[in-house]
Amino acid sequence: MKRIIFILAVIAIFQTATAQFTGMMGGQQSAPLPEGFKPSSCNIFISQYPAVNPQTREAIFRVVAPAARIVQVDLAGKRYNMTKDEKGTWTCKTDPQVVGFHYYSIWIDSVPVMDRNTNAYFGSNWESSGIEIPEGAEGDYYRFNKNIPHGHIRSIYYWSEINGLERHCNVYVPAEYEKNPDKRYPVLYLLHGWGEDEDGWSNQGHMGNIMDGLIASGKAVPMIVVMDCGDIKTNPDVRRASTNDVTQIYVKDLIPFIDSTFRTKTDRMSRAMAGLSRGGMQTTMTVFNNPDKFAWLGTFSGFFMGGMGGRGAAGGAQKPPSMTQQIETAFNGIFKDPEAFNKQFKLLFISTGTEERNPREQVEALKAYGIKNIVYHESQGTAHEWLTWRRALYDFAPRLFK
Amino acid sequence: MKRIIFILAVIAIFQTATAQFTGMMGGQQSAPLPEGFKPSSCNIFISQYPAVNPQTREAIFRVVAPAARIVQVDLAGKRYNMTKDEKGTWTCKTDPQVVGFHYYSIWIDSVPVMDRNTNAYFGSNWESSGIEIPEGAEGDYYRFNKNIPHGHIRSIYYWSEINGLERHCNVYVPAEYEKNPDKRYPVLYLLHGWGEDEDGWSNQGHMGNIMDGLIASGKAVPMIVVMDCGDIKTNPDVRRASTNDVTQIYVKDLIPFIDSTFRTKTDRMSRAMAGLSRGGMQTTMTVFNNPDKFAWLGTFSGFFMGGMGGRGAAGGAQKPPSMTQQIETAFNGIFKDPEAFNKQFKLLFISTGTEERNPREQVEALKAYGIKNIVYHESQGTAHEWLTWRRALYDFAPRLFK
Repeated sequence: MKRIIFILAVIAIFQTATAQFTGMMGGQQSAPLPEGFKPSSCNIFISQYPAVNPQTREAIFRVVAPAARIVQVDLAGKRYNMTKDEKGTWTCKTDPQVVGFHYYSIWIDSVPVMDRNTNAYFGSNWESSGIEIPEGAEGDYYRFNKNIPHGHIRSIYYWSEINGLERHCNVYVPAEYEKNPDKRYPVLYLLHGWGEDEDGWSNQGHMGNIMDGLIASGKAVPMIVVMDCGDIKTNPDVRRASTNDVTQIYVKDLIPFIDSTFRTKTDRMSRAMAGLSRGGMQTTMTVFNNPDKFAWLGTFSGFFMGGMGGRGAAGGAQKPPSMTQQIETAFNGIFKDPEAFNKQFKLLFISTGTEERNPREQVEALKAYGIKNIVYHESQGTAHEWLTWRRALYDFAPRLFK
Repeated sequence: MKRIIFILAVIAIFQTATAQFTGMMGGQQSAPLPEGFKPSSCNIFISQYPAVNPQTREAIFRVVAPAARIVQVDLAGKRYNMTKDEKGTWTCKTDPQVVGFHYYSIWIDSVPVMDRNTNAYFGSNWESSGIEIPEGAEGDYYRFNKNIPHGHIRSIYYWSEINGLERHCNVYVPAEYEKNPDKRYPVLYLLHGWGEDEDGWSNQGHMGNIMDGLIASGKAVPMIVVMDCGDIKTNPDVRRASTNDVTQIYVKDLIPFIDSTFRTKTDRMSRAMAGLSRGGMQTTMTVFNNPDKFAWLGTFSGFFMGGMGGRGAAGGAQKPPSMTQQIETAFNGIFKDPEAFNKQFKLLFISTGTEERNPREQVEALKAYGIKNIVYHESQGTAHEWLTWRRALYDFAPRLFK
């Protein structure tokens, strides 16, 4: 009896808390899953949809919207029309998808919104829905492994004079860190791309699982990984700086903060930077302008020497510079003396998905020009997306600090 | 010139990345803010709306939805109809709001969705929009203070045998922790409520800023604060346990994990638990069933002795038990011997907002019955919401471990 009273009171509290949302739970109702389909691992814990078939790699979406006229799913560049049943529930099944993580949106009467069935993933500058197509055994390296020690990802706010505001960053600290109170660690600064944020590498990229596995297996040396925000995060009416200024923030505010907060090795041989997409551009801007601070760099699907690859000069009025001219002028002439470059930088890692714009030609030209410590990595069958970047990190991190 | 090529290439990369979302940026366009209004601190960094007037405490919402027929805002129990301009932008101004954090939703043709202009806050079991009404100087205790040291909130996955899955928890570690490698710390287990998750206390509650301030000023002793998930987070088709089982997870999986991972004091006098709403119920369930493990507890707007306060027995067929009967039978008779209770528990902290269901009568009855280490705290003018809980933590934490 006590137990029943107890439960009644609990229900009363829940009703208070949920009164505001009473009409809203419809979107999360369960429905039986078709044969072969499983809830996507990006779903909130009470949602069965979106559901994924790991064999066929198809996905089924489900939205409760009785009064809407048109409901669509926008996934991987294709807009799917959903079909309404008599209860006002809209569903559709997609084409087979590439494995890995994909953003998507639901369009309700032409308004793109987040699907309430998934966790939020910040992408394209809004909190977006996500779906994960399982990669099978190949994806073991980015899934949680209960049999190895795990690092912690620390959520930290630090003051930036340049930003004029506190900034949020995430810092991966390897599992062994606190067991070795006198040991100092090398640091990788790992940047996200346009429209995403400092949570991207841990949430979408599963970098914690990747690093835990690489370190536990001895493939990578234990290191600290710093993931800062690549934007100037103030509201538009008080923004004092542009996104280009983040390279200044990294060098003048962030690195000193990290070096005074953690047991880091502070020499340039113990500091690397890498980034994806726009973060690749920020990496080359930061590292090549501060060669006294970094000896290792990586760009994943990232900007790499803008003029190369046949893109013409501004306005198209001038003849495009030759590949050699581009190499010699890129980044204020950093490649012009290949021997000096080879001495200065331990690694220039360039990665891309095979289904996106490809820098292979530039890499070959750089090698032919005499740049030696260059590694070129391709992710088979993927485009400008997170599976490309998970694979890139998995290949890149073991090469560092050795 | 190099700079221009550079920028062109960057734009090309951004276009690739954003092609999928081209139509979607309309919701985030800027528009001049009316006199006295500022972007809400919950907004994503490029959004000016929702905007808040700190003086009048009104809010203005803005949604771009040219093809929608009805667009509404649901905030604090009221549904506001928005008005469309000739460009298809919907706006509305709300009544004055209570200060602090509030969830809200946008309804597009009767479908409740998240407003893309804000960061995501997990509430009512979905990623929800939030707005913050500034509290003025009184709110200093929960805002970032650049002049004091800051703890880190660590994002951690641990394996739970009971859950049959890895679980995510956040652990606040005080700023001084790593400077004192031989010191051990007391631990507060701090629980969220129904529909929220282990990120609630840090995101909605600003617990990091609150604890940093209390510890830096010497008001609270340096402590570790563990924020675990109050639900069994597997997808519906593989869920093996109910939410009630989390108390077992706390005791059998979580506490041993925390004590083996951090430099904790492991005696019961150095362990506290508190929770809000359903987390208050989980706190009393956990602590009163494991008095060998905890000596301090708090329930904020939480469940407290279900039968008390005039709520009848199941089915209403029986006469409701008297207050004394309720005290003597609650929690398997934990209060029946007040002297034993007073000896065993250092603090029973009960907090509530003045605008929600109020346990004052029960507290008075407990005191009259002889329960001594009881503290009753009220948050003036607030209901079942985060300002109530920020204030509760601010009052509660300084009382612990002394």
